[in-house]
Amino acid sequence: MARILSPADLEAELRQVAARRYYHLHPFHRLLSAGRLDRAQVTAWALNRTYYQAMIPVKDALVLSRLADPADRRSWRRRIVEQDGEGEGESGLDRWLRLTDGLGLDRAKVLAFEGVLPATRFAVDAYLQFVRERTPLEAVASSLTELFSATVVSERMSGMLASYDFIARRTLAYFDERLARVNRDADFALAYVKTHAVTAETQALAIAAMRFKCDVLWSQLDALHFAYVDPKLPPPGAWNPDEETR
Amino acid sequence: MARILSPADLEAELRQVAARRYYHLHPFHRLLSAGRLDRAQVTAWALNRTYYQAMIPVKDALVLSRLADPADRRSWRRRIVEQDGEGEGESGLDRWLRLTDGLGLDRAKVLAFEGVLPATRFAVDAYLQFVRERTPLEAVASSLTELFSATVVSERMSGMLASYDFIARRTLAYFDERLARVNRDADFALAYVKTHAVTAETQALAIAAMRFKCDVLWSQLDALHFAYVDPKLPPPGAWNPDEETR
Repeated sequence: MARILSPADLEAELRQVAARRYYHLHPFHRLLSAGRLDRAQVTAWALNRTYYQAMIPVKDALVLSRLADPADRRSWRRRIVEQDGEGEGESGLDRWLRLTDGLGLDRAKVLAFEGVLPATRFAVDAYLQFVRERTPLEAVASSLTELFSATVVSERMSGMLASYDFIARRTLAYFDERLARVNRDADFALAYVKTHAVTAETQALAIAAMRFKCDVLWSQLDALHFAYVDPKLPPPGAWNPDEETR
Repeated sequence: MARILSPADLEAELRQVAARRYYHLHPFHRLLSAGRLDRAQVTAWALNRTYYQAMIPVKDALVLSRLADPADRRSWRRRIVEQDGEGEGESGLDRWLRLTDGLGLDRAKVLAFEGVLPATRFAVDAYLQFVRERTPLEAVASSLTELFSATVVSERMSGMLASYDFIARRTLAYFDERLARVNRDADFALAYVKTHAVTAETQALAIAAMRFKCDVLWSQLDALHFAYVDPKLPPPGAWNPDEETR
């Protein structure tokens, strides 16, 4: 990759990566959105996603610490302000927990990440490590999967609401809030990447960051699929619906 | 140190550390505040402090990334919001730069940290590394020098204004803003440390963090003193008033 791309071609390239590797193609996501999972499988998804969810403001604080320009930091900090909210019970995590509450999970256990798959932790921790250690450009570029999340999240929401009687509209409050912001966030990140990735080398890094982030999301669904769908082998210590006393 | 201190005794111990090691005791600070430095020496101070200044929001974003509780993050993020301000030209760094502008330094060079003493960078970078790698308790505790800064900063401001005709009130705008917030910030950090340092081991870590932070501030003044006061030996590459074309 020696050629320098125009900003528009760089964007097209980033979109190509997602078209091939974003998690909307993953079988677990397809089953989830199509209403073809059982309650235990949806619960496993929600439980594991809590770890990702809880780390998002941490990730964004790390990205913030990588941005040298106060103007860039002002844009990025909106994420943290919105994720953590203004007062007790108003954070994105609080909204997220309505879903795990609604699925009957114990909140204290959920917040201690009890039973979360090791592969979930490893993938999310790798994401934190990536934004901590790579260049600021790569840290920002790794958020660009957000360019695609609005569509995929809306589809998943309507699929889940239509299919699962154990999921109520109000327990999906997290996604309503998120959908309201995600395109604005993605637009800023895309503009940042187009401005800063202006050599063949930095453009390759930005594209690799997008690929990396797709891997982070994809591998979490692989682990869920393996443990709870096929061949259904939850690893030792992971949440196991057959061992739950209901 | 096997004994567990009461919260009040822990606070007393932290204050003891500062009483012996905070930079209000440093000869460079005393000369600066007493109006006994020349314009070049004050300029060297302002130039070097810019590096510290620019890294403060970065440091606070790192601390933010270490806090697991959204409520703690809501408190800590106020620092970043206030430091970076709401719009172009309204950041703490912008206010700080009025001082370096007023001293006739080239803004582009200042913002590139050109001529900053290596020891300044090493000390500030050690601080960033500390909050990045130590426990969240230590990261927060290292900010507790703020318990003392209001008094020392006010004294320095009035001393500087009274003594230096090359320093104008409006160029010290940064400190006005900072003084308005620093006690609130310090109170939060102190409450956090009292709540979280409840074993002999964690109390020792908190006290060591305070000592470390005093060292970070002190060593920056050592380097300034050595390079610009006595024996006046600026290291190669550092800002040198004798080489400046005025």
